[in-house]
Amino acid sequence: MILKDYDISLVYRLLEPGPVVMVTTSRDGRPNVMTMSWHTMMEFTPPLIGCVISDRNYTFDALKATKECVIAIPSVKLAGKVVQVGSVSGRNTDKFKTIGLTPKPAFIVKAPIIAECFANIECRVVDTSLVNKYNFFIMEAVKASIDHAQKNPKTLHHHGKGTFVSDGVKIRRKFNSLEP
Amino acid sequence: MILKDYDISLVYRLLEPGPVVMVTTSRDGRPNVMTMSWHTMMEFTPPLIGCVISDRNYTFDALKATKECVIAIPSVKLAGKVVQVGSVSGRNTDKFKTIGLTPKPAFIVKAPIIAECFANIECRVVDTSLVNKYNFFIMEAVKASIDHAQKNPKTLHHHGKGTFVSDGVKIRRKFNSLEP
Repeated sequence: MILKDYDISLVYRLLEPGPVVMVTTSRDGRPNVMTMSWHTMMEFTPPLIGCVISDRNYTFDALKATKECVIAIPSVKLAGKVVQVGSVSGRNTDKFKTIGLTPKPAFIVKAPIIAECFANIECRVVDTSLVNKYNFFIMEAVKASIDHAQKNPKTLHHHGKGTFVSDGVKIRRKFNSLEP
Repeated sequence: MILKDYDISLVYRLLEPGPVVMVTTSRDGRPNVMTMSWHTMMEFTPPLIGCVISDRNYTFDALKATKECVIAIPSVKLAGKVVQVGSVSGRNTDKFKTIGLTPKPAFIVKAPIIAECFANIECRVVDTSLVNKYNFFIMEAVKASIDHAQKNPKTLHHHGKGTFVSDGVKIRRKFNSLEP
């Protein structure tokens, strides 16, 4: 693991492709982690991220209470662990230990980064106006770091009911984006 | 093109993986189209979709006024056209004609479906409470259709600045999802 800072204004490049991510929280000194695919970028700078976290999840209460989390992006090599994280509740289990993921202290927030993930984005909740109605949290990315030891990581994309698709070929085009 | 109904409760399977999509609108009988990657599922049924459409886009005003759009999902074969759609404004151009995409009447909304796309999701805006602050529209998918002539379409994912990644291999895992 060779952890390096990642330009916070480029966080959209990590999330806009729509990867399956893991979300860590820490409440009363107890870290937890869940999987998530329902997220979107909302602003470039400061980078805002919107995401739905079901109120049936243990993470929901922790995020509501602490207003901090880390969005950790796993490569396809972690597919098995990602599925386990999404299949167990943190209510009665220390998922990090059981599943074999390593929580490391983050730089700014109390929620841990995940050592095995190639990118970790530390976030603070900045808008809860749609939490009651849609379980929708708006967060600001306050710090991002990348593991330079992981070369060309391919991400996972969830197509529902246990079908994932990993990244394929890169396509480069001249693109004067008018749209976010 | 062999257009078939797609179960509206399964729309999340199309959007959760985070593909680049095109959004059509129709205002005063004039259809337009833009590209978009900042979207997320927000609910399974009725299917709710949240998306950011910049207020600098011509589409923003049309969507605000008509409250209807179609989210059309292109396969990687349309990469060149997708890039063109994202590089030109509809303010002065009929993008469908110039770029060579075919607008077809949708089933429910006035915005057109795009014949070349493998999936078309007709949407109505249901919540504009975050439009002023974040350009964030919440829409309900009211009808979805699939082109059965396109077998195993691979989607595009935008990594920023003209770098796209297409779908790679499928990975199937037993997954008791606790999370949306």
